[in-house]
Amino acid sequence: MKDVFEDRTDAAPEDPGRLERTVDFCRLLDKEKFIGRRTYLTDGKRLENDAEHSWHLAVMALLLAEYSNVGIDLLKVVSIVLVHDMVEIYAGDTFAYDSEGLKTQKAREAAAAGKLFSQLPEDLSAKMQALWREFEDDITPEAHFAHTLDNFQPMMLQAATDGKAWKEGGRRLSEVLGRNSRTALGSETLWEFAKEHFIRPQLRNGHLKEDTEL
Amino acid sequence: MKDVFEDRTDAAPEDPGRLERTVDFCRLLDKEKFIGRRTYLTDGKRLENDAEHSWHLAVMALLLAEYSNVGIDLLKVVSIVLVHDMVEIYAGDTFAYDSEGLKTQKAREAAAAGKLFSQLPEDLSAKMQALWREFEDDITPEAHFAHTLDNFQPMMLQAATDGKAWKEGGRRLSEVLGRNSRTALGSETLWEFAKEHFIRPQLRNGHLKEDTEL
Repeated sequence: MKDVFEDRTDAAPEDPGRLERTVDFCRLLDKEKFIGRRTYLTDGKRLENDAEHSWHLAVMALLLAEYSNVGIDLLKVVSIVLVHDMVEIYAGDTFAYDSEGLKTQKAREAAAAGKLFSQLPEDLSAKMQALWREFEDDITPEAHFAHTLDNFQPMMLQAATDGKAWKEGGRRLSEVLGRNSRTALGSETLWEFAKEHFIRPQLRNGHLKEDTEL
Repeated sequence: MKDVFEDRTDAAPEDPGRLERTVDFCRLLDKEKFIGRRTYLTDGKRLENDAEHSWHLAVMALLLAEYSNVGIDLLKVVSIVLVHDMVEIYAGDTFAYDSEGLKTQKAREAAAAGKLFSQLPEDLSAKMQALWREFEDDITPEAHFAHTLDNFQPMMLQAATDGKAWKEGGRRLSEVLGRNSRTALGSETLWEFAKEHFIRPQLRNGHLKEDTEL
């Protein structure tokens, strides 16, 4: 990760506006706390926001990294999940089961990433853009594991609320399996766990419609 | 950081209940999203919660690490800030200017840490406890920088809301300087920035009472 974020740059702060621009960006990030998701928190009442979700994924990366299919750079995984939803500050959250929104999501989010990260000094902008792009491209082991967590965590909350959002949305198993088509790429163990502990109980109680085989 | 969190452990998942216990803990962490702080978000209306705050600090660690007084292990800093407020799930948030609460804070939080982290498998429990303890002891460069961020971020939001919470609380400069007595230990640059951009403007407009010299 030394190539992405250096621990300290002695030479960089020659640009007098550098710190101001970076702090302006940090302040702007506050907006991520207002972007609502469709997942209920464990109280079954309030919906999660993007900042809370990203924190949860980052902590879960620290605790669950051992279940990655292959060795991963933990700082990179944590950085990716911290950054992965920032573009929604401009693009908004696209619900995982909103088929119309999903068609334009890539283009809207790419434009948002350009607008957002260009507000940073050039080197930091490139670093943030690279982390976001790595998540989107989903080719590296770190991106695979980040996606596994990004799918695992909302299903964990879903199960903790007895499948409330799935029940309300009339969700079908085939939709959930579609959403999770790449979850095992990051961790076969976590995907197996999710099937047994998060999905199967909601099929048994009928809160998720069984239109295909698990 | 290899000694604290390994990227992958091939041998560990022999314990059949290990993953269940770890996921149970991850689910419990959802409660951090309900712990309110005294800092207004940039909309000046809603108060921040601990999970949002921890996410914000972690991202700011990625963006501001170059301003650390000395070289730091970035994964360790990020891990510390992600974990540092978890004990409040049992101990509650202690307001930085609540002098009565501050007297018992250390003991309450140590008890909470024991109760919280003991729910994890032993090795993960020790790792989380060590990160929390490192923050509390505030001896290492990583802990210093984590504290700098923990003080810098709420002042940034404070300034973004024109000192609203300071004005409402009748806050005095001497209190703010007391709270920030160690902020420069992690970054002299960020402390100087905070004085100029976050504190001095609130003295000028009278939202922070000037009872001593800045």
